[in-house]
Amino acid sequence: MSKRQVYLEDIPLEEAWRRFSTAMQSAGVWEALPGEDVPLDEALGRVTAEPVWAVLSSPGYHASAMDGYAVRAAETLGATETSPVRLRLGAEGQAKYVDTGDSLPAWADAVIMIEQTQLMGDDATGGGAIEIQASVPPWSSVRPMGEDMVATELVLPANHALQPVDLGALAGCGHATANVRRKPRVAVIPTGTELVTVEQVNRDGARPGDIIEYNSLVLAAQVRTWGGEPTRFPIVPDDYERIKTTVLEAATTHDLVLVNAGSSAGSEDFTARIVKELGTLLVHGVAVRPGHPVILGLVECGAESGERCDMPTYRASRITHHVPIIGVPGYPVSCALTGEIFVEPLLSHWLGRPPREKPKLQAAITRKLLSPMGEDEWVRVTVGRVGERTVAAPLSRGAGVITSLVRADGIVRIPRFSEGVDSGQSVTVELYRDPSEIDRTIVHIGSHDLCLDLLSQFLADANRRLTSANAGSLGGLVALRRGEAHLAGSHLLDPATGEYNVSYVKQYLPDVPVVLVTFVHREQGLIVAPGNPKGVMGLADLARPDVGYVNRQRGAGTRILLDYRLSQIGIPSDQVRGYRREEYTHLAVAAAVQSGVADCGLGIAAAARALKLDFVPLEQERYDLVIPRAHYESDLLRPLLDLIRGQEFQQAVSGLDGYDATHMGEVREA
Amino acid sequence: MSKRQVYLEDIPLEEAWRRFSTAMQSAGVWEALPGEDVPLDEALGRVTAEPVWAVLSSPGYHASAMDGYAVRAAETLGATETSPVRLRLGAEGQAKYVDTGDSLPAWADAVIMIEQTQLMGDDATGGGAIEIQASVPPWSSVRPMGEDMVATELVLPANHALQPVDLGALAGCGHATANVRRKPRVAVIPTGTELVTVEQVNRDGARPGDIIEYNSLVLAAQVRTWGGEPTRFPIVPDDYERIKTTVLEAATTHDLVLVNAGSSAGSEDFTARIVKELGTLLVHGVAVRPGHPVILGLVECGAESGERCDMPTYRASRITHHVPIIGVPGYPVSCALTGEIFVEPLLSHWLGRPPREKPKLQAAITRKLLSPMGEDEWVRVTVGRVGERTVAAPLSRGAGVITSLVRADGIVRIPRFSEGVDSGQSVTVELYRDPSEIDRTIVHIGSHDLCLDLLSQFLADANRRLTSANAGSLGGLVALRRGEAHLAGSHLLDPATGEYNVSYVKQYLPDVPVVLVTFVHREQGLIVAPGNPKGVMGLADLARPDVGYVNRQRGAGTRILLDYRLSQIGIPSDQVRGYRREEYTHLAVAAAVQSGVADCGLGIAAAARALKLDFVPLEQERYDLVIPRAHYESDLLRPLLDLIRGQEFQQAVSGLDGYDATHMGEVREA
Repeated sequence: MSKRQVYLEDIPLEEAWRRFSTAMQSAGVWEALPGEDVPLDEALGRVTAEPVWAVLSSPGYHASAMDGYAVRAAETLGATETSPVRLRLGAEGQAKYVDTGDSLPAWADAVIMIEQTQLMGDDATGGGAIEIQASVPPWSSVRPMGEDMVATELVLPANHALQPVDLGALAGCGHATANVRRKPRVAVIPTGTELVTVEQVNRDGARPGDIIEYNSLVLAAQVRTWGGEPTRFPIVPDDYERIKTTVLEAATTHDLVLVNAGSSAGSEDFTARIVKELGTLLVHGVAVRPGHPVILGLVECGAESGERCDMPTYRASRITHHVPIIGVPGYPVSCALTGEIFVEPLLSHWLGRPPREKPKLQAAITRKLLSPMGEDEWVRVTVGRVGERTVAAPLSRGAGVITSLVRADGIVRIPRFSEGVDSGQSVTVELYRDPSEIDRTIVHIGSHDLCLDLLSQFLADANRRLTSANAGSLGGLVALRRGEAHLAGSHLLDPATGEYNVSYVKQYLPDVPVVLVTFVHREQGLIVAPGNPKGVMGLADLARPDVGYVNRQRGAGTRILLDYRLSQIGIPSDQVRGYRREEYTHLAVAAAVQSGVADCGLGIAAAARALKLDFVPLEQERYDLVIPRAHYESDLLRPLLDLIRGQEFQQAVSGLDGYDATHMGEVREA
Repeated sequence: MSKRQVYLEDIPLEEAWRRFSTAMQSAGVWEALPGEDVPLDEALGRVTAEPVWAVLSSPGYHASAMDGYAVRAAETLGATETSPVRLRLGAEGQAKYVDTGDSLPAWADAVIMIEQTQLMGDDATGGGAIEIQASVPPWSSVRPMGEDMVATELVLPANHALQPVDLGALAGCGHATANVRRKPRVAVIPTGTELVTVEQVNRDGARPGDIIEYNSLVLAAQVRTWGGEPTRFPIVPDDYERIKTTVLEAATTHDLVLVNAGSSAGSEDFTARIVKELGTLLVHGVAVRPGHPVILGLVECGAESGERCDMPTYRASRITHHVPIIGVPGYPVSCALTGEIFVEPLLSHWLGRPPREKPKLQAAITRKLLSPMGEDEWVRVTVGRVGERTVAAPLSRGAGVITSLVRADGIVRIPRFSEGVDSGQSVTVELYRDPSEIDRTIVHIGSHDLCLDLLSQFLADANRRLTSANAGSLGGLVALRRGEAHLAGSHLLDPATGEYNVSYVKQYLPDVPVVLVTFVHREQGLIVAPGNPKGVMGLADLARPDVGYVNRQRGAGTRILLDYRLSQIGIPSDQVRGYRREEYTHLAVAAAVQSGVADCGLGIAAAARALKLDFVPLEQERYDLVIPRAHYESDLLRPLLDLIRGQEFQQAVSGLDGYDATHMGEVREA
């Protein structure tokens, strides 16, 4: 009954890769790409296609290593302070001035530094002379011919990515060009009727159902990063014949074709059918998450495609050749990971290099992760060093959330058929960043506030990174107790005292010496649509049946505030329509109001202003940074504390709607 | 008396950098460079000049996460297998088909997967219907508006180098361009009358005294690697006015001028004088080795240079501006390290980023290093993991030996006024390579043989690196005893038995279980000039006063062979002219013969053939690989052992002159 055919398989990753590489071997397109000669100033980062042997020796002659006089060492024997030796200059002389780098005269076998000589007036021969007060051994202050490289010597191996100094060595031993592997040419074809370019959206505005196409941008940039030459094709609508024509066109001039299947399952099926029609469908569906609906195959090209005459097999047969094709899933995270898992190893192989390895480290995972049965899962994490521990906090697992990759410090692979990972368990993280970046990362877990974004911006100038996970105020305190964060933003009202945070910190962190640093005071209130069409005036209106609410998650300070105020005015939560719809940030609450899902939500003024919504102010609250004393006194956090006590940052915060920075930086011990 | 002025100072590195940066601050050229808008597909690797906030939410609407039917969750309540619920399709219906990614109708708040629905025939309304057997909660299978990014949210901080997924996120939230820092423009000016291009040498041949200019190639590639835009100027001869004119021209259109001083001290002084004349000479001589004669300064440019109107200060004043200038020493290693020490931090600063940090590791240094008093020294090392130890072996310390940087795995900084480093002491290595490359590195220390170069080439295809330090046969055995190498090439003849290596291994490695693997048999003989002009026929001729010899270093198997044979025929070493001139490889011996320094030297046939010299064969010797059993059985060495027992490599060796691979791979226990 569905308009699409469902024929996903569940091929394990290793088996999928085996099928793909074996088929490429049989088709003769598995070998490393041939070499091409490029001038040295275009060879940076390219990979040598063959070993490089020295053509010339360097130096190519015995060279003076000093400014001084070339001499015969034997003739300096016996020179002392009290009985200096005099050496004749001139045409038939015993000494000749040489600059550093100059070639030694054939008769000379040593150089005396100029500082150790005394130039004398003309002597009998009319050519002048020098006097020396010490002898020199043979070959002193001389760089012998071939000191650096001897002609015929191996200078660089094949399959080596050329670094700046390598280029110098190549030139120094007589090479004006380098023979480097041709860059793999990769076609990137985005498909999907729903896709629009960001330029179109900027010009015409976004319509519901439009999806901004950026997967081809990501894939092309990945290909470039990995040493390939990408071609981005224009968006092809979901039309079997048009996609097929484009694939064929791309295959004649590229080493690899990537068809990005848009976000609907329909276009993915087009790709599979096209691969079947044009060649061999090897794999449709790999047991990985995200990225499941990957397609691997080969398409066949006719002989008329002269462009690929440098492909070894084609050159041999001159009849048809095969081109590998990958159907890349449409969800952005699936797409980017498919690049890492399939495209990168293939490009590395074609360039004659082992697959890139990311730096690895061991870290304690902060949350229990259930393993999807039968699938390898790649989980994006942020990583921080908190005291003696290295902790990895999982980010969103949604395949549509590209920001989970943008924010990720690394990735954890949870193998299929494993029993998942327990909270606190040690996992191997493959890092997207230098380990040194991890070392200067301040980990915040807790309540979300817009000023944290601003703070992270200021911190970047102070050589610190701030990563922030929105777990709510209580979640932050729990994270501190578990040693998973350096600090926690918190705005927990104690109804008994009217005071913020102190009693909660005592309850949740009884054994951890902690400093409470006031961050901001901010306005809480009801975020409503422009013009406040439902006329919401206060929390009492949440009981109205015509008012839909959007809530914050359990443990959020704003949620606790709501529950407390509702109980004060006697409104049971089940009387609030939408009470169960939970969002994790103020902005997400505002977005829910903006989109019409809800009529109002409790949140901060700044979030309402950001999305041009209206705001019904209710009260001012204190938002603290809760910092264990050990971290409070660490070098890592010093720039953060300096910043929030400095004028510049305080002024920036005061400029934001609904914020008061008067008490920023004040300390309470707890 | 000297034609050059000597006014080198010894400014410590930190002080030199402080003077330079302070002067740039005063001159207003220290700030990070301004931003420029570039299309996203040109923004890879560029650095954001400002924070990026989302323009659009993503998704921009509530989107279906599945192919299925959009419904009102409330209307699905009560559906079970036994009492399914029927929902009307059509214009006024209760369900509407949606593809993954489609926008939800305004009335819908959930999606039911197509697999969980049953399409029914036309019902009374004529629009058809679906039947479901389970209810769905609100918002199930829906990606809510803003799930990934909410408009106004911070997406990326300033000073962030754009990665492929970042580009996707930027497009996804509505940006068609990125505001990134302008690339620092760097002029690279090579100076020196003795310099020639490698293209000239290829065309006209090399004359004595010619130096192939490649420092500008290295500096330009470094600048590119570090995010700058280099301009390579043609070689300028040592002419004060021409260099001055070129510096002025470069300064008007660049952010930084690098003048490479050729290899003679004279041109370096030109640079210092020109900087003095055109602006301020801040530093001349930094207490670092290699790299001492670095010059730091600022030159002043007139207002007519409209090109630099994007420099903040210039824009403000419109009268004159200052351009930093670095006089880079001429020796290639000094030059490349000056790039790393001064140019990289400056470019990083202008791009708003912390200086690049190399990955670091601790290693035991294999040789005592004396510290140069008063100078920081950078020592190039190779690094390997030998059993449980990580060892760093110093390479040539010569400032002219670019291959010491090409071969270096990393660099060790020995601080000035330290007492040097003892053999075995732990040092911090800043790595030029990924640590993963170190993990797959096989460390050879011992006798040099050309087949090791060939082996390293074959190993590259087997995901192993072979680093080779030429320490002679005895040096290799000592290195094995000290746990510094995985294997040692050795060809030590025991005069008592006529057997190779076994007795030496017993003597030098009494406590280490060792396997001797035959590598090659090779011809030893006298390398002589073409045509053998001195008519050298055997070792007896070395006693002739008209025959000059070039020797191998103590501990080399070839040296031991020579000493043994000389004693057999009764020639004392002091009767051999040139006995004390020592070279470290066969090729270096051949090069000495080729250059006329010596008439002959003992070595292998292949080295003579390589340099087109003649060869007087004397005997065949066995060359073994000595491998401690623990390494012999390791995964690391398996590919090496497989290779030397395989046909392909054996055939390649047999094809070389003077080599016999018949017994390759055979094992002797010792």
